Amino acid sequence: MPKQVDHQARRAEIADAVCRLAARAGLDAVSLRHVAAEAGVSMGRVQHYFKTKDEMLLFAFRAIGERVERRMTAAIGDARPGSREFLRAFVLEMLPLSPESRAEAPALAAFLARAVVEPRLVEPLREGAETLTAFIAEQVGGLTEAVTLLALVDGLMLHLLTGQVSEDAALAAVDAFLDRVFG
Amino acid sequence: MPKQVDHQARRAEIADAVCRLAARAGLDAVSLRHVAAEAGVSMGRVQHYFKTKDEMLLFAFRAIGERVERRMTAAIGDARPGSREFLRAFVLEMLPLSPESRAEAPALAAFLARAVVEPRLVEPLREGAETLTAFIAEQVGGLTEAVTLLALVDGLMLHLLTGQVSEDAALAAVDAFLDRVFG
Repeated sequence: MPKQVDHQARRAEIADAVCRLAARAGLDAVSLRHVAAEAGVSMGRVQHYFKTKDEMLLFAFRAIGERVERRMTAAIGDARPGSREFLRAFVLEMLPLSPESRAEAPALAAFLARAVVEPRLVEPLREGAETLTAFIAEQVGGLTEAVTLLALVDGLMLHLLTGQVSEDAALAAVDAFLDRVFG
Repeated sequence: MPKQVDHQARRAEIADAVCRLAARAGLDAVSLRHVAAEAGVSMGRVQHYFKTKDEMLLFAFRAIGERVERRMTAAIGDARPGSREFLRAFVLEMLPLSPESRAEAPALAAFLARAVVEPRLVEPLREGAETLTAFIAEQVGGLTEAVTLLALVDGLMLHLLTGQVSEDAALAAVDAFLDRVFG
């Protein structure tokens, strides 16, 4: 395997290990040591990529973000930007409804909770949120609607993960929002 | 101090210590040992009340819930149940907008994130959510609107805590929801 590809593959393996650990045992379990064991690599190897737990979490957060984007692109297909169909496909990829996103969502929830107290994680989160809010605001024709939809989606993600709402109830909430915005 | 009052006061002190630790350093920091140090009591004293970290988190979660309820009752005043004013006062107490709720919200966020992977925390969370959803559904006239509002509120709580939205933007989102429902 070429060195560059090998490097990428290693990092992807580590992101997967972070997701599995976060899903099984939560943020507490996501230490450099546990991730090394979970990924089946040496502690030194993990430390070669990440100096701290937060660097590793940030990497996993970005890696998950890229995967979600790829799935969004596929789900959107040739739906027209600004259409109900486009936004629905986009939003559903942000919820833990498929096996892939169900595997990643606990790591995202752990990252969000950690960002509440870790300023170094807040900065990339805010940047991402700003871009996303502006993009959604264009689709739904207003900032307040965009803020509402993004909060709704993160709230539904948490409530789905903790079983506070059913998938049907979450889908009904998303569809009611879209019905209203797209009339 | 009578023994019963002393007991209650001790437990309240421990809940406060959990909130301060969760706000300062996140869920990782909320160990029995750290909470004992933060509350200025012995480790044995904390262990007298709680056998595990999750028992302590559950207690803090319930203690915060009771405080939020008391503040809600005060904020609602004599607003009529089923009115916009009633629901607005109710909902705003669930967001980190006052010094009290800002102090408690990181512990709630940590509890939610922990419940994603800890089945013993999910049960009380689900029970609380069921009661709350039914109550809100009566106010807004429908289950889907209740699910939407509660997800919106938890999403806004997280986004306020991480600075992804401003207080003004969060209030605008709540008011837009209420305008629509009571419009």
